[in-house]
Amino acid sequence: MLIVPGTEMTPEEFRDFGHAVVDWIADYRAGVEELPVRGPVRPGGLREQLPPRLPEEGESPESMLADLDRVIVPALTHWQHPSFFGYFPANASLASVLGDLLSSGLGVQGMSWTTSPAATELEQYLLDGLARELGLPAEFTFPGGGGGVIQDSASSAVLVALLTALHRGSAGAWRSSGLTGGEVVYGSAETHSSLAKAVRVAGLGHDGLRSVSVDPDTLAMRPAALAEAVAEDMAAGRRPVLVCATVGTTGTGAVDPLSEIAAICREHGIWLHVDAAWAGVAALCPELRAPFAGVAEADSFCTNAHKWLMTAFDCGLYWTRHPDVLVDALSILPEYLRDPAGVGGAVVDYRDWQIPLGRRFRALKLWAVLRWFGLRGLREHLRLHVALAEELAELVRGDERFALVTEPSFALVCLRARTGAGAAADDRRTERLLASINESGRAFLSHTAVAGRPVIRVAIGGVTTERGHVLALWRLLGEAFEAAAAG
Amino acid sequence: MLIVPGTEMTPEEFRDFGHAVVDWIADYRAGVEELPVRGPVRPGGLREQLPPRLPEEGESPESMLADLDRVIVPALTHWQHPSFFGYFPANASLASVLGDLLSSGLGVQGMSWTTSPAATELEQYLLDGLARELGLPAEFTFPGGGGGVIQDSASSAVLVALLTALHRGSAGAWRSSGLTGGEVVYGSAETHSSLAKAVRVAGLGHDGLRSVSVDPDTLAMRPAALAEAVAEDMAAGRRPVLVCATVGTTGTGAVDPLSEIAAICREHGIWLHVDAAWAGVAALCPELRAPFAGVAEADSFCTNAHKWLMTAFDCGLYWTRHPDVLVDALSILPEYLRDPAGVGGAVVDYRDWQIPLGRRFRALKLWAVLRWFGLRGLREHLRLHVALAEELAELVRGDERFALVTEPSFALVCLRARTGAGAAADDRRTERLLASINESGRAFLSHTAVAGRPVIRVAIGGVTTERGHVLALWRLLGEAFEAAAAG
Repeated sequence: MLIVPGTEMTPEEFRDFGHAVVDWIADYRAGVEELPVRGPVRPGGLREQLPPRLPEEGESPESMLADLDRVIVPALTHWQHPSFFGYFPANASLASVLGDLLSSGLGVQGMSWTTSPAATELEQYLLDGLARELGLPAEFTFPGGGGGVIQDSASSAVLVALLTALHRGSAGAWRSSGLTGGEVVYGSAETHSSLAKAVRVAGLGHDGLRSVSVDPDTLAMRPAALAEAVAEDMAAGRRPVLVCATVGTTGTGAVDPLSEIAAICREHGIWLHVDAAWAGVAALCPELRAPFAGVAEADSFCTNAHKWLMTAFDCGLYWTRHPDVLVDALSILPEYLRDPAGVGGAVVDYRDWQIPLGRRFRALKLWAVLRWFGLRGLREHLRLHVALAEELAELVRGDERFALVTEPSFALVCLRARTGAGAAADDRRTERLLASINESGRAFLSHTAVAGRPVIRVAIGGVTTERGHVLALWRLLGEAFEAAAAG
Repeated sequence: MLIVPGTEMTPEEFRDFGHAVVDWIADYRAGVEELPVRGPVRPGGLREQLPPRLPEEGESPESMLADLDRVIVPALTHWQHPSFFGYFPANASLASVLGDLLSSGLGVQGMSWTTSPAATELEQYLLDGLARELGLPAEFTFPGGGGGVIQDSASSAVLVALLTALHRGSAGAWRSSGLTGGEVVYGSAETHSSLAKAVRVAGLGHDGLRSVSVDPDTLAMRPAALAEAVAEDMAAGRRPVLVCATVGTTGTGAVDPLSEIAAICREHGIWLHVDAAWAGVAALCPELRAPFAGVAEADSFCTNAHKWLMTAFDCGLYWTRHPDVLVDALSILPEYLRDPAGVGGAVVDYRDWQIPLGRRFRALKLWAVLRWFGLRGLREHLRLHVALAEELAELVRGDERFALVTEPSFALVCLRARTGAGAAADDRRTERLLASINESGRAFLSHTAVAGRPVIRVAIGGVTTERGHVLALWRLLGEAFEAAAAG
């Protein structure tokens, strides 16, 4: 084939190069387990391997694939490695990769219904269907007067929830005159940092965020403490706007008591946002739904398909029972975006449900996941990892060298080393064995702190993570414990 | 091959299905010109064609491809159609599609340097290189003490600029105590609506946004009016925070006079953000750089590779000379994100440069574009469309049935019908011919308003848009003019 780089790739060239890229990815996924989960990388090391200037002349994609092997792959942390247990999983299943490829290939913009009706309507369809399967109330679906939308992430979801709450709480004045001062938002010390970021972005400043105390054992928000903080703020003339409750905190997977929190919110007209960024998808399994009791009373709910529901980033799912308030809060309609369908109110224009204007056709990757796995396949995936977490926790319980810091939550296990030589020695050992495992490249773990002490998090949920990988991690923990003792 | 849907696709299955999806996209792109740019679609029509419940059992991807043909494609507006001239182009070149596929396939998270060093370092490398090629000042590059980052869109870029400006202007108080009231932001009536949205999101309310008057002919912001508004606000005790100047407004491609605006900003310590979301990439061509004179004095600059630089959405490029202030404004460091590289300051953690926490490896699609086209190929693409816009404008000038509303700007031509029967008749004819062209499916155009009157925008810049498509559009405009007269 005669290739003329510098002009648009022909469909025939795309066919050939596309097959080559697909094959490259197939090989990468087939071989990723053989790679160190994270190799040794020096800051700035990549730049030295690239030419000083951007290329003047075009070139065939083969050279880029060669550079991927040579320069990029060695400097990655391999999130799709089956022994990646850090942060939360980003399980980008191959079905979702294909769905996302279709989205790029179509290259349409879904900012308004009219700019590509299918992009909006498929998203509405999927979010309604998932609401039903997750056991969310009918009021979160479009037929029930609510609605769902794909946000890039849970960070944006909580920001959108906060802006909607500010608008609602101001009787409309927020849109025109902004904050009045005295608006207050509530989370706990275990709430994800995205709440603090949203509070800052929205202009409240850190002073506008209350960190409600948690139960020292479960690390769940204490409703009594919340009620007290709200009362105190109201007495001082401040205005409670939003409470962010979490099902499955990032640190330890703690679960805030939704029903009790919802009662407080209802009493004072406070917006209740439920952040279940990681754990929310577990509600697909009826037997895992207990922690979500009370979610029907929330004003909004978020869970990320891109964490534990097999979907490549970004795919944050956000539902609210008040889409009218949301749209009223965020809509701005310049002439160049005005169209009859949108103005007539016959359709949903998702641009008004999010911060950015433009949007990809992200529903396709979620659709691809639902169709490839089926709900049954997704439930099996979730159940496998919950069972593996329980098995790992049982191993920890039976080994005097380790201790569970909290009971396992969904598929997250939090542990620390136990030396018998006191807390300071335990902490040093915990930090050293974590570092040594990550340096080994044989697994990757991340950490948190509980009561100021270091804790190792084992977040199970990779696309190809199986029992063998968890058992191998357990052996590795034991070896690293002994090596750290000797070292 | 034995397919077991419901479990992760094997690499070998992915190879087969991936080839099929690539072929589907190749066929779509090869045939898109034969489709109506936008077919007739009824709100809610898509849902009726899908099963009422999400699938319980998994299935082979072939069925999804069949549904794409049956249900999705007929309900799309085809942004990659060569006769799509609406809004601004979203030119998702096939090279960028492959780059984005690699990003999904790798499935890594680039929120911190440590979570995948290559994702961060490649992005830094590309943004530095592009800054140089765009003629941006060295102070916008990492070696020069500034830096660039990929945002999802220009909406997020201007929000980030505003938050940074609020932080800088408050001597740090904004982080802790939020807005003080009286913060003011300046744009013009032609500034993109994302500025108004950012002002609302940041809590200033619409009252915090000044719409500076524009020159009635060029629709460019009047520096004298800006100076006056700033003086008035300062005299009243308000605090000017940010001016958003635009190179290439969405309505008509107007260019605000950067140097004169920069002088006013400098005098009063106001942050100058330059929004060149669409037109900014044209600065790759030295002969198109004149409208950007003065950009070296800006505090931040944004242009979208996903509009006119061949890159699939989302890829908004944002540079600032004050990354330290940006990071100080947005950073929040919970324990679970703490790592030695980030804490030591040796690396860039892009999570602190944006609103969301998580981020895709978006640099890959930009790299794929730069390598396939080369800078030379990209310049040729830009020049072709600028030349076609000039050719179309010349045709308009020579035809008494049409009038240019403004002089063509870069690759945007704004026109209206001219009936000889007065402004009201012209406006009716303009609206009718626009509607009839869009209904025909033979081209797609969008509109704006200038001085309250409807204007047809012809935004040239599609990946495969060539001279023939522009000339065909011109014939279509003539036919539609006559048909609208007769109708």
